[in-house]
Amino acid sequence: MTIGIGLIGAGWIGEEHVSRLTNVITGARVTAVSDIDLDRAAKVAAIAGARVIDSPEKLIDDAEVDAVVITSWGPVHAEQVLACIAAGKPVFCEKPLTTDAADGLRILEAEQAHGSRLVQVGFMRRYDAGYRQMKQIIDAGGVGAPLMAHCAHRNPSVPESYHSGMATLDTAVHEVDALRWLLDDEFVSVQVVKPRSTSKRFEHLTDPQIVLLETAAGARIDVEVFVNCQYGYDIQCEVVGETGTVRLPDPATPVVRGAAQAGFAVVQDFPSRFAAAFDVELQEWTDSLNSDRALAGPSAWDGYAATVVTNAAVRALESGQIVPIELTERPAFYA
Amino acid sequence: MTIGIGLIGAGWIGEEHVSRLTNVITGARVTAVSDIDLDRAAKVAAIAGARVIDSPEKLIDDAEVDAVVITSWGPVHAEQVLACIAAGKPVFCEKPLTTDAADGLRILEAEQAHGSRLVQVGFMRRYDAGYRQMKQIIDAGGVGAPLMAHCAHRNPSVPESYHSGMATLDTAVHEVDALRWLLDDEFVSVQVVKPRSTSKRFEHLTDPQIVLLETAAGARIDVEVFVNCQYGYDIQCEVVGETGTVRLPDPATPVVRGAAQAGFAVVQDFPSRFAAAFDVELQEWTDSLNSDRALAGPSAWDGYAATVVTNAAVRALESGQIVPIELTERPAFYA
Amino acid sequence: MTIGIGLIGAGWIGEEHVSRLTNVITGARVTAVSDIDLDRAAKVAAIAGARVIDSPEKLIDDAEVDAVVITSWGPVHAEQVLACIAAGKPVFCEKPLTTDAADGLRILEAEQAHGSRLVQVGFMRRYDAGYRQMKQIIDAGGVGAPLMAHCAHRNPSVPESYHSGMATLDTAVHEVDALRWLLDDEFVSVQVVKPRSTSKRFEHLTDPQIVLLETAAGARIDVEVFVNCQYGYDIQCEVVGETGTVRLPDPATPVVRGAAQAGFAVVQDFPSRFAAAFDVELQEWTDSLNSDRALAGPSAWDGYAATVVTNAAVRALESGQIVPIELTERPAFYA
Amino acid sequence: MTIGIGLIGAGWIGEEHVSRLTNVITGARVTAVSDIDLDRAAKVAAIAGARVIDSPEKLIDDAEVDAVVITSWGPVHAEQVLACIAAGKPVFCEKPLTTDAADGLRILEAEQAHGSRLVQVGFMRRYDAGYRQMKQIIDAGGVGAPLMAHCAHRNPSVPESYHSGMATLDTAVHEVDALRWLLDDEFVSVQVVKPRSTSKRFEHLTDPQIVLLETAAGARIDVEVFVNCQYGYDIQCEVVGETGTVRLPDPATPVVRGAAQAGFAVVQDFPSRFAAAFDVELQEWTDSLNSDRALAGPSAWDGYAATVVTNAAVRALESGQIVPIELTERPAFYA
Ligand SMILES: [Mg+2]
Ligand SMILES: [Mg+2]
Ligand SMILES: [Mg+2]
Ligand SMILES: [Mg+2]
Repeated sequence: MTIGIGLIGAGWIGEEHVSRLTNVITGARVTAVSDIDLDRAAKVAAIAGARVIDSPEKLIDDAEVDAVVITSWGPVHAEQVLACIAAGKPVFCEKPLTTDAADGLRILEAEQAHGSRLVQVGFMRRYDAGYRQMKQIIDAGGVGAPLMAHCAHRNPSVPESYHSGMATLDTAVHEVDALRWLLDDEFVSVQVVKPRSTSKRFEHLTDPQIVLLETAAGARIDVEVFVNCQYGYDIQCEVVGETGTVRLPDPATPVVRGAAQAGFAVVQDFPSRFAAAFDVELQEWTDSLNSDRALAGPSAWDGYAATVVTNAAVRALESGQIVPIELTERPAFYA
Repeated sequence: MTIGIGLIGAGWIGEEHVSRLTNVITGARVTAVSDIDLDRAAKVAAIAGARVIDSPEKLIDDAEVDAVVITSWGPVHAEQVLACIAAGKPVFCEKPLTTDAADGLRILEAEQAHGSRLVQVGFMRRYDAGYRQMKQIIDAGGVGAPLMAHCAHRNPSVPESYHSGMATLDTAVHEVDALRWLLDDEFVSVQVVKPRSTSKRFEHLTDPQIVLLETAAGARIDVEVFVNCQYGYDIQCEVVGETGTVRLPDPATPVVRGAAQAGFAVVQDFPSRFAAAFDVELQEWTDSLNSDRALAGPSAWDGYAATVVTNAAVRALESGQIVPIELTERPAFYA
Repeated sequence: MTIGIGLIGAGWIGEEHVSRLTNVITGARVTAVSDIDLDRAAKVAAIAGARVIDSPEKLIDDAEVDAVVITSWGPVHAEQVLACIAAGKPVFCEKPLTTDAADGLRILEAEQAHGSRLVQVGFMRRYDAGYRQMKQIIDAGGVGAPLMAHCAHRNPSVPESYHSGMATLDTAVHEVDALRWLLDDEFVSVQVVKPRSTSKRFEHLTDPQIVLLETAAGARIDVEVFVNCQYGYDIQCEVVGETGTVRLPDPATPVVRGAAQAGFAVVQDFPSRFAAAFDVELQEWTDSLNSDRALAGPSAWDGYAATVVTNAAVRALESGQIVPIELTERPAFYA
Repeated sequence: MTIGIGLIGAGWIGEEHVSRLTNVITGARVTAVSDIDLDRAAKVAAIAGARVIDSPEKLIDDAEVDAVVITSWGPVHAEQVLACIAAGKPVFCEKPLTTDAADGLRILEAEQAHGSRLVQVGFMRRYDAGYRQMKQIIDAGGVGAPLMAHCAHRNPSVPESYHSGMATLDTAVHEVDALRWLLDDEFVSVQVVKPRSTSKRFEHLTDPQIVLLETAAGARIDVEVFVNCQYGYDIQCEVVGETGTVRLPDPATPVVRGAAQAGFAVVQDFPSRFAAAFDVELQEWTDSLNSDRALAGPSAWDGYAATVVTNAAVRALESGQIVPIELTERPAFYA
């Protein structure tokens, strides 16, 4: 069984996914690529020997496209996902599922009307070996009932186009999803604390930020987002429960003793840090499609919830207030 | 040179300090002990072959008392410290210097009127080897300008008498002082976040708490205070600067590999965790007194500031609000 | 391009490799399986939808077999590898390439006569991320010229059929290959030191053993082999150079603080420890076959050298002497 | 109680011990100092306000000298220790107790004739917190019966006067004592393996060396001695038992993340590494003398045994052979 994949959006991450689906993932084949920029589409399609199709709509309807991967610009995700659902085709959508909560609700309704899951959202941390081990330990009661989590999400630097809202919309969104999943809980409020900004960033940017989240069960999460930390791409996460704590491991890296130091190299970018997670994510998705198993990855509900939370965080950043997070009632379909 | 020490307050920490001054510290000798409970005073005095004196006032004035150590109940500290200043005698006062900010101001005035430092406050973390190395690294620019600190202060459990305000007054007060010192900065506001309380605590207690502090320079500190964490006495501190981070080390402990685990024992109580810090603290204090050097340890100003901050934190806990911290102008005497 | 693979030997590791080639590796497909036990062959073939072929010779000659994977019993490897070379088909042979050095020489001659590399030996540690990082660091001069290496190879326990010679033939053979590769050097002598045996092993077994190896460049390697260590499958390796040391990392595993301990789980078996290495090994081999690139993995020379070293180690174990290791001159073909 | 100490040998370590006894140790006072170099003696005596005495014999007999500390040149230790025993005065002798085994036997006889312990040898590692925790864990059965130990003793560099025999006589002698104590066992043979020497040492020196020791119970210890390792003063020790392993911790040191690395500073010299151990060693010795407790530190037997072992190691280095270690029968006095 080899599933035919159509990819919409031939940017950096689109190219990565086409390479991955071609060279790493077994059971899938990229058959079609679409992008506004046709040259770009052609270049990426060539990696897989795929055809270029000149519109997302045609790609979704193409006979060689069994399933769709969306790596286009965030604001068009919702429309493209809805088109996939309308066509009854499985769709893997990079985050965000939608930039607007109302669109998210439409996706939930459409998928429920279809009657079975079609949508998976690209929150790859759920496929990282360290996070998965944390999840197993927490679920097995290894730290008792979770009460708190302390997280940090650090990048060496960001380009000038990065703006303050992206600290949650683009960056902490990964912690938003990872913590919802690790704690099996929903967020109910958010506050953003602004330390003095580092001098090593573009003037317009508020960096670092500390995002404070509260869950329905009363757990509290703090996420340091620091996208110009200079020294590396560094992801920290510690969950504190009633009887213990568990901490995300650093990547396994040789310790060198030399020149009066003992230390190890810190990874410099997220593709390196989460390369294996991306592989596992797409392989498990492909395996689901090639089997009778229902999709098990992040759902449309997870995508919708992340959007509601991160949009609230942007309002919290702007207002300085504690902002309530209001989700619609969770449909039994997504239980 | 052996300095004669009078100790006021023969409780647990008083007994510890008498033993330490007798058996560990060189250059000091406990000559007199005072306590409301005369039997207790006699028992502790016997450790050092010291006399029992039946009132703090008489002890402070005693000819064999060159310097005073105060380990009495917090609410009487200010009065006893003021009496020492009036007598012109150096005084080492366990924290808190004072429970009331107004008394703190009186101490500042009295010491300035005396014209040289007499007061040192027992914030022993400044003498812990790990914190000292952090301070050196930060001062040497090893992480760039500090922007944030993430701290945790965990106890296995506390007795029923422990109340919610003590989370800052008694517990996080150590982080309050340590961070003022590490960052060389003053706090300007405080907020207390309340996660769901652990089920493993007395009903009346809010535990854990997360204390959020802001400094004059705009740094943000979060302190998890969790005094019924069950698993150990665990102190965590990470300072994040513009170019890097530095983390307080765990105590050096052998790693055992056995029974499918690799791990090390976590210390269970603060006297074990900070035993060496207490030794260094009292030895350096004694050495200052036996030399021409001015006192270098935590000053009356540090004690006053800690009181203002922790009292504000209690109000923040009660109100749920962000509470401003207002210190008097720092006298040049304490520059 | 999908290469057709014939597998000889449907035991445990054969089944693993068929599953891997079917479900994980891209670009390869198992088309035929052979085993003395036809039921076993049928069971394993079914994983891949492959045919059962009733002799290794026929399998090697089969038109659907582009390349061969040998996972049969060690003593028949040489004969099967020679048959593959005679057929001009690439062959991936699990270690040992041969149990007898003379057979190894025949393989070297046959492959040279063929004129290009056909043989790769299954030393999977060269594909482990930790070892690869060590290799990069050493090759980049990160520890200076290597002088020593300290290794440990520990298993929780072994079955009664394991005998003392297997400590090097089956177990330390991985360190023999990994160190030849890490140091880019050949061994010239071996000695085996016998500590008192653990009480927790079958009576006939000498366990642990310490294998001392000397290289042509004068480096010294000590390998603790301890196959009944009880607590886990634990691989340690530290290379000491003229200016520093580098140590193989433990697998990245969350640290749990709980019950007065801070620690992490130790892996219990080698398939877990080296799962990713096995995947990378077969994927890179497949990629080589599907491209114009020459084979880059462990060669027939590496397999021959490992056999000479481990056979000498068995003589050293038996004699208690330092045994010289005598390799034939290395052909330029294997430079 | 303050014990009067006479110190013989005012070199570097003598000066260190006088400072320590004066400024750190409680219950002792240096009253007299002797050295061939009278100026040097005067300088060191001044630290403590002690008298200079112009011969070791007079110092030992001096009325103000209750106990003696020997920090003179190794070859004269035995004679000076014997003089202390003859005078019935406790003596703390820096290692080696004696350079010659026959002198060691004379000391054992003289001390037994005296009827109670007078001699303690300066093996300070037994007072290091990390080693003490290892000892507790091993004695409590935390790793099962010990089978092996892997050690490394590394210095950044040594002066030209350091010769190859000193690798065991001066350097590995600490591991010899520490392992005898940790394992509660005696050594029965020694072999020295010579890796290619580092290019970064004086030409005459064999560096590194690997010392292989066998105990009466059959445990095997390997000690890497590498005294020009360039990067730091680094002490490693792992004991492997039947059910687990325990490893000496690195000193507690803050981890800094910065400049693409995460790491900590490595100590550069042994006085920094073992400062606290030296303090504890002399304090416990002083406390023994000021109490009714018998001496508990390393005994004359320990000093004698270390000399026999290290002298055998030098013969092993020279001969390349496995050299038997033959101790006299251990007197019940030293049980
Ligand atoms: Mg594919
Ligand atoms: Mg004293
Ligand atoms: Mg395949
Ligand atoms: Mg003293």
